[in-house]
Amino acid sequence: MSISMSSASVPVFRSMLANLDHFLAKAQSHAENKKFEVVNLLNARLAPDMLPFTRQVLIACDASKLCIARLSGVEAPKFDDTESTVEQLRERIAKTLAYMDSVPAAAIDGCEDKEITFPVGRDGATRTMKGEDYLKHWAFPNFFFHVTTAYALLRHNGVELGKRDYLLGSKA
Amino acid sequence: MSISMSSASVPVFRSMLANLDHFLAKAQSHAENKKFEVVNLLNARLAPDMLPFTRQVLIACDASKLCIARLSGVEAPKFDDTESTVEQLRERIAKTLAYMDSVPAAAIDGCEDKEITFPVGRDGATRTMKGEDYLKHWAFPNFFFHVTTAYALLRHNGVELGKRDYLLGSKA
Repeated sequence: MSISMSSASVPVFRSMLANLDHFLAKAQSHAENKKFEVVNLLNARLAPDMLPFTRQVLIACDASKLCIARLSGVEAPKFDDTESTVEQLRERIAKTLAYMDSVPAAAIDGCEDKEITFPVGRDGATRTMKGEDYLKHWAFPNFFFHVTTAYALLRHNGVELGKRDYLLGSKA
Repeated sequence: MSISMSSASVPVFRSMLANLDHFLAKAQSHAENKKFEVVNLLNARLAPDMLPFTRQVLIACDASKLCIARLSGVEAPKFDDTESTVEQLRERIAKTLAYMDSVPAAAIDGCEDKEITFPVGRDGATRTMKGEDYLKHWAFPNFFFHVTTAYALLRHNGVELGKRDYLLGSKA
């Protein structure tokens, strides 16, 4: 099979979201074992001017959801960003995965040159890129940034995760 | 243009390696401005059992180099992992980019179903994946892991980097 815009995108998001879900399960167990409130992990930041763990998870979900919505034109569900527990974060991931499953590959394929305009930053600015470039140079780097930062935050705070968890999640 | 194995891979590595080079330039300036030895950043770790910054850069280079070598069959230069300064790390990135530039797209294209066998872990174990799966589920996650961890290490240690630096590097 030749690589296509759907095969290049959806499976990457799907497997890494499943791995992110696995990090959350491990974070929950770690807090229970060590007898501290898991919210201490959810609020953790790597620097005072970086976003906390919870936001890393929310943005990883949105980065993947919005990428598929923009490439396919299939409207994505809007989430309210009110998640404050591990359970709610895992539900957010599940809803993101369910949306992805609902988008037919045919709606994504062939979008290499489709012009995608998307907001950047907080001042209403936008940027326009072609579909393939948007996937490679914006959606992927952004998505992996937040998944990896979520992992790094948990590792920095003592959760027992390893590279196998990052690459294989619950299949490790 | 339809997405291909070469278009899906090389440009991603190339742009993120350039951004990683840009982080290194900023780390150097930061250390000079604050009058501390930049090696303090190069040796920084996010957890005592995680690899230090220098190794994050070396592995990001190798993850991308080895991916292209395995997909294309074009032998990659071997590096000795002796880098210990910012200048040497930037040279490692430059050499990785030069190797990538030397691989013709035609050597990569069509490798979707090519069987790739590669070492995993330290006990001599290997794993075999098809080319497209290897790119999406091993090489990309691994590559972005190390680029993002390098970024996170610098941010955690006060280097003034922002998401724009991560996404756009010196073009930000």
